[in-house]
Amino acid sequence: MGWGDLGAFGEPSKETPNLDQMASEGMLFLDFYTANPLCSPSRAALLTGRLPIRNGFYTTNAHARNAYTPQSIVGGIPDSELLLPELLKKAGYTNKIIGKWHLGHRPQFHPLKHGFDEWFGSPNCHFGPYDNKAVPNIPVYRDWEMVGRYYEDFNIDLKTGEANLTQIYLQEALDFISRQQASQQPFFLYWAIDATHAPVYASKHFLGTSQRGLYGDAVREIDDSIGKILKHLQKLGISENTFVFFTSDNGAALISAPKQGGSNGRFLCGKQTTFEGGMREPAIAWWPGHIPAGKVSHQLGNVMDLFTTSLSLAGLQPPSDRQIDGIDLLPAILQGQLIDRPIFYYRGNEMMAVRVGLYKAHYWTWSNSWEEYSKGIDFCPGQNVSGVTTHTKEEHTTLPLLFHLGRDPGEKYPLSFASAEYEGAMERISNVVQQHKVTMVPGEPQLNVCDKAVMNWSPPGCEKLGKCLKPPESEPEKCIWPH
Amino acid sequence: MGWGDLGAFGEPSKETPNLDQMASEGMLFLDFYTANPLCSPSRAALLTGRLPIRNGFYTTNAHARNAYTPQSIVGGIPDSELLLPELLKKAGYTNKIIGKWHLGHRPQFHPLKHGFDEWFGSPNCHFGPYDNKAVPNIPVYRDWEMVGRYYEDFNIDLKTGEANLTQIYLQEALDFISRQQASQQPFFLYWAIDATHAPVYASKHFLGTSQRGLYGDAVREIDDSIGKILKHLQKLGISENTFVFFTSDNGAALISAPKQGGSNGRFLCGKQTTFEGGMREPAIAWWPGHIPAGKVSHQLGNVMDLFTTSLSLAGLQPPSDRQIDGIDLLPAILQGQLIDRPIFYYRGNEMMAVRVGLYKAHYWTWSNSWEEYSKGIDFCPGQNVSGVTTHTKEEHTTLPLLFHLGRDPGEKYPLSFASAEYEGAMERISNVVQQHKVTMVPGEPQLNVCDKAVMNWSPPGCEKLGKCLKPPESEPEKCIWPH
Repeated sequence: MGWGDLGAFGEPSKETPNLDQMASEGMLFLDFYTANPLCSPSRAALLTGRLPIRNGFYTTNAHARNAYTPQSIVGGIPDSELLLPELLKKAGYTNKIIGKWHLGHRPQFHPLKHGFDEWFGSPNCHFGPYDNKAVPNIPVYRDWEMVGRYYEDFNIDLKTGEANLTQIYLQEALDFISRQQASQQPFFLYWAIDATHAPVYASKHFLGTSQRGLYGDAVREIDDSIGKILKHLQKLGISENTFVFFTSDNGAALISAPKQGGSNGRFLCGKQTTFEGGMREPAIAWWPGHIPAGKVSHQLGNVMDLFTTSLSLAGLQPPSDRQIDGIDLLPAILQGQLIDRPIFYYRGNEMMAVRVGLYKAHYWTWSNSWEEYSKGIDFCPGQNVSGVTTHTKEEHTTLPLLFHLGRDPGEKYPLSFASAEYEGAMERISNVVQQHKVTMVPGEPQLNVCDKAVMNWSPPGCEKLGKCLKPPESEPEKCIWPH
Repeated sequence: MGWGDLGAFGEPSKETPNLDQMASEGMLFLDFYTANPLCSPSRAALLTGRLPIRNGFYTTNAHARNAYTPQSIVGGIPDSELLLPELLKKAGYTNKIIGKWHLGHRPQFHPLKHGFDEWFGSPNCHFGPYDNKAVPNIPVYRDWEMVGRYYEDFNIDLKTGEANLTQIYLQEALDFISRQQASQQPFFLYWAIDATHAPVYASKHFLGTSQRGLYGDAVREIDDSIGKILKHLQKLGISENTFVFFTSDNGAALISAPKQGGSNGRFLCGKQTTFEGGMREPAIAWWPGHIPAGKVSHQLGNVMDLFTTSLSLAGLQPPSDRQIDGIDLLPAILQGQLIDRPIFYYRGNEMMAVRVGLYKAHYWTWSNSWEEYSKGIDFCPGQNVSGVTTHTKEEHTTLPLLFHLGRDPGEKYPLSFASAEYEGAMERISNVVQQHKVTMVPGEPQLNVCDKAVMNWSPPGCEKLGKCLKPPESEPEKCIWPH
């Protein structure tokens, strides 16, 4: 989902009454970011509070390439990483993930080995259908074992766009919350649903109900579901004791437009890029009785902050034996403070850009290669900013391209290199970048090696269902990341 | 001002608390249009309820060219046109215009000859400063006579951007409303201020206060002023008896970006064009006790509707001896009805496009000429949709370019000509267009002839101020309209 997909963020159809109401009852973040313009690294960053370059969710197979965890990936979240649910356990929390895990699907990476107590969902994206010969269909897990596969037991009709997955995930959430309330246990629910990722789907009740087509139907279903979750918390009388945060893992995938693509508002480009459209996210904090209603924040935030903020809410300290990139947002959320902190825009192993205050400096610009672009893969459809949305990887490390995101949110007008404004802003930014680079110790890259033998051929529980498939022989190879 | 300039419409700085509150207390229109992507024709359409092609506010000097009323214009609003204030007078209304008239500045076009009882403001845009030799500075009128000139008695500091004009116009509005309330007279106030038109200005109190630079300062001052006007109505106890509508006369002028340009959100291009960015406007209706708070409307609306709607509010019928293009929006505003009606996108003498429901068909596409573009005049900076944002005037009258504005608000993906969707939508649209063209009787074009002798050399009242200037000899010529 993109920054511009919600009514509260200016989507012209304004079809998200529940999220808009959540914002009017809570705090709307206008300057909130993901840690990476792609799903796996972004989700790894959220759960570890650390940049993907630190927690290993990147590749060194090539320079500045987006990588994720397709089912052929060999790597996943390292045991050495401390995930939010592992830490929350110490404070007595029960932790559940509903939806897409995406932090590795081999046994050692299973979410229940990394702090979660329950899981309902899939380890990978809902791509398919596959033939179960060259490629197996993606399994859906309940806790330790698979309970079926997408396109088989959990159908997605690619022709009509119908699938009731969001409804299933909603019901899982409501049930979990009810159980936790009944047992008086504190809980962490990570509702990490697949929608609105392509192939886009919605359940029958929502199909054809949006001005925006199928993508809008999916947004409406998410909006409706979140409304139901919030109302459930209120009905159970625990809304004033439950902190809820809504955000997305990357900007809308404009490459899926117009049929399955969302909106990044007036921001440049989309998913896969380090322009604002790829990384600025819709974000809403909700906590009745604690967050004053209808507030708007310009705090620079990041999904990694949800790690530190959640620990803070549970009365826990973040680990002190490693660099944590997320900050505690509670002073911003509860007292309206503005905490000075930079935002780093990474693509794979490269820091492409950095934001300090309202200034954003691009050290590298790239949308995608001419080769990919000539195949029709366009991350910036209809947008073309000369020297900015480049199809060759352009290095600006000695003289970064600088934008003022207040006057120019669309990153169209680089500041003059000769201006006093450029000089003043870059002095500040250079210090921030230098400090960042000096202390940066990259983690072991996890997304370099692929192997068809590690695909979801025979996940645990497959025997009971008669759904075990025979893997091919192991042939590890370098994963190819074209973007 | 553009569709995207308000917080309620997704401006990322969200600096318009008063307008956002006005929307939350009233009705937000998401599909509201101007009648022309340029100021004079738009304002003429608002006051007559008729398309510029009918009321004469267009040119036939060239095909599909935007025209307006610079101070060399010979024409203006014809006596045969019936303006909203003329009609409201019959119901006992006192009418005042504050700000830019722009419907002709020669004596016969004076607003007090066309139904207004009071005027404070200028006949033309606040361009300048001029030398009072080749070109006179624009006068500011109080009622029948000038009281000074811009850059002389009403200063605009182009270096700092400081001018207190919006404050003066605000005070005029508050005073007028107080007087009307005291005398128990019904009133029509047309608060037609110059800001945020370039050269952009703001008063000292607002300078430097916006994330967005000078343009944002001006928006904040307008927002603050409207908040004060609404509070004034409430304080006087007449808010439940006063209908207030906020909108703009054209999309944001992207050519003035980034320093003085606003935002059209995610819509394509800006002022001067018939893409959504040029003609879709922010719009809010406010009438406490009558309009339910926080409503959102997808009614296709147009500035011309304010003519018919205002008459309806005053218990008057629109004139029956001529074609009126504006419709009565009260059923949409008060009962939430959706009235089926098309939107026509004119540029000069040409119907460039038409919207019916969510479909928009372009019969002609043009941003501006290669010649102008090569001079750096770009109405679509950073945007380039192949075959759509064309620099040659492209005719599509036999096979219009069709867009679905729900799925594709940015007009980037024309529907396939071969699709059933195209055929079905175009059948409906063709009927609408045919009916429109068959009944269209263009008015006498008023914006063809220019003459330096008619400039504001010696406006009435100049003698008292010692500000009369000697006009040159009359040399009527065809006005040149490059866009």
